[in-house]
Amino acid sequence: MDFLGSIVFLCLFSMGFCQESMNINHLDPDLLPRPLIIEFSESRLKNMSDDIAIHCTSWRVAVEANNLSPWKTIPKECADYVKDYMLGRSYNVDLEKVSKESGIYAKSLQLKGDGMDAWVFDIDETLISNLPYYSDHGYGSEFFNNVQFDKWILEGAAPAIKPSLKLYEEVLSLGLKIILLTGRNENKRNVTITNLKHAGYHKWDKLILRQNDREKSAAAFKSEKRKEITEEGFRILGNSGDQWSDLVGTSMATRSFKLSNPMYHIP
Amino acid sequence: MDFLGSIVFLCLFSMGFCQESMNINHLDPDLLPRPLIIEFSESRLKNMSDDIAIHCTSWRVAVEANNLSPWKTIPKECADYVKDYMLGRSYNVDLEKVSKESGIYAKSLQLKGDGMDAWVFDIDETLISNLPYYSDHGYGSEFFNNVQFDKWILEGAAPAIKPSLKLYEEVLSLGLKIILLTGRNENKRNVTITNLKHAGYHKWDKLILRQNDREKSAAAFKSEKRKEITEEGFRILGNSGDQWSDLVGTSMATRSFKLSNPMYHIP
Repeated sequence: MDFLGSIVFLCLFSMGFCQESMNINHLDPDLLPRPLIIEFSESRLKNMSDDIAIHCTSWRVAVEANNLSPWKTIPKECADYVKDYMLGRSYNVDLEKVSKESGIYAKSLQLKGDGMDAWVFDIDETLISNLPYYSDHGYGSEFFNNVQFDKWILEGAAPAIKPSLKLYEEVLSLGLKIILLTGRNENKRNVTITNLKHAGYHKWDKLILRQNDREKSAAAFKSEKRKEITEEGFRILGNSGDQWSDLVGTSMATRSFKLSNPMYHIP
Repeated sequence: MDFLGSIVFLCLFSMGFCQESMNINHLDPDLLPRPLIIEFSESRLKNMSDDIAIHCTSWRVAVEANNLSPWKTIPKECADYVKDYMLGRSYNVDLEKVSKESGIYAKSLQLKGDGMDAWVFDIDETLISNLPYYSDHGYGSEFFNNVQFDKWILEGAAPAIKPSLKLYEEVLSLGLKIILLTGRNENKRNVTITNLKHAGYHKWDKLILRQNDREKSAAAFKSEKRKEITEEGFRILGNSGDQWSDLVGTSMATRSFKLSNPMYHIP
């Protein structure tokens, strides 16, 4: 019986031990402190990523609401966020929204029909996209390199921003004059025309590029040009641009539309 | 043996049936078509909720970027989204961001020190919050009811927007004159003063309320008042408001700051 008793004890002991091992392997969060620490870390990680998403969305909305001072690169911690935004559905949904809103407004206009009703479009990140370039340059997390960017521009390969092409076609079919006003330098005129045509933009009344007057802000340059346009008799009823410097200043359009761009800022 | 055979057959049959029932109850997605349909629905639901989040964020950004035509209520499908935004961390993070950016700008200013440097603040959803009212009225998903809203205003119980109180104190301490410019009616002057003081705002140079001139847009009213202010000799260096109609038009501030507000729109 003593021997039998020992065997039974051993059996029960191993079963108990086995049970305890299983508990450890399960890492029951209600029983052991270790899983609670793991849970805490995981929850911190989750919160961290929530924090980043909230912080970077807040930053992006501040960009779109024109609340920020001039900035040279996107915040470091938002590099992945901006990449996800640009490559995911959100950027395109935003572009479609602004195109749709602009179209509704354009169609609501009572045009005078004297050929002086006009819509101003910016070019880069408004009609055509440099996303292929920026995808090779950190989506705005690298400092702007104008030599490399010029190389890309000279390829003339920037694709159309499809929702903007749709708006352009609507605006054109309504009988508004199209005025293209860009910060691109005059020496890029030919490649810009080639690129625009290749992307599906075939008609415009004016294509205004910039002389070598870089001491002036883009907002000042574009205000000045809008003034000249209105002095010619044009009524600028709409203006589309991805930079606030495309839209604000003087001789502003009756309505301006800000296309999303969290990758770079031009004052 | 025949009887015993029948019993064994019955047992095996029931076990098999039982096994099949269990499979159905488990709804093994790899075995049956039905769970695949359920999976499809679940994935649709998940996508739908992603779609809603992307769509409503896009709508909210369009509000903040001033891309929308006048709207009377938030889109129905965004009711929960806006509620989550207002009650979650995002709204407060956005308010803190705009307060911080405004503060950085205010501190960077070279003031003339002649007592004519000024900062214009809107009141509702800028200095004080009507969130307690809107939380009882669907966060912007109900049509605006001015009788009920006036009742709330007359309680004088709107709490301070803390990040704006911080900015107000900074702007005040820098020596700028504070001008409060609100669409509230002149007959709310006393309760507005009581409410502002109760919320921590104790000093301002002007409190401009509105006469009974409701045919004018808020943007026109505020532009007119800013014109009068500048004609008095004030330089409006900053302007904070939750509506674009607080900020745009004529006699605009050197810099304007748009506080987030997806609940309502005042043209």
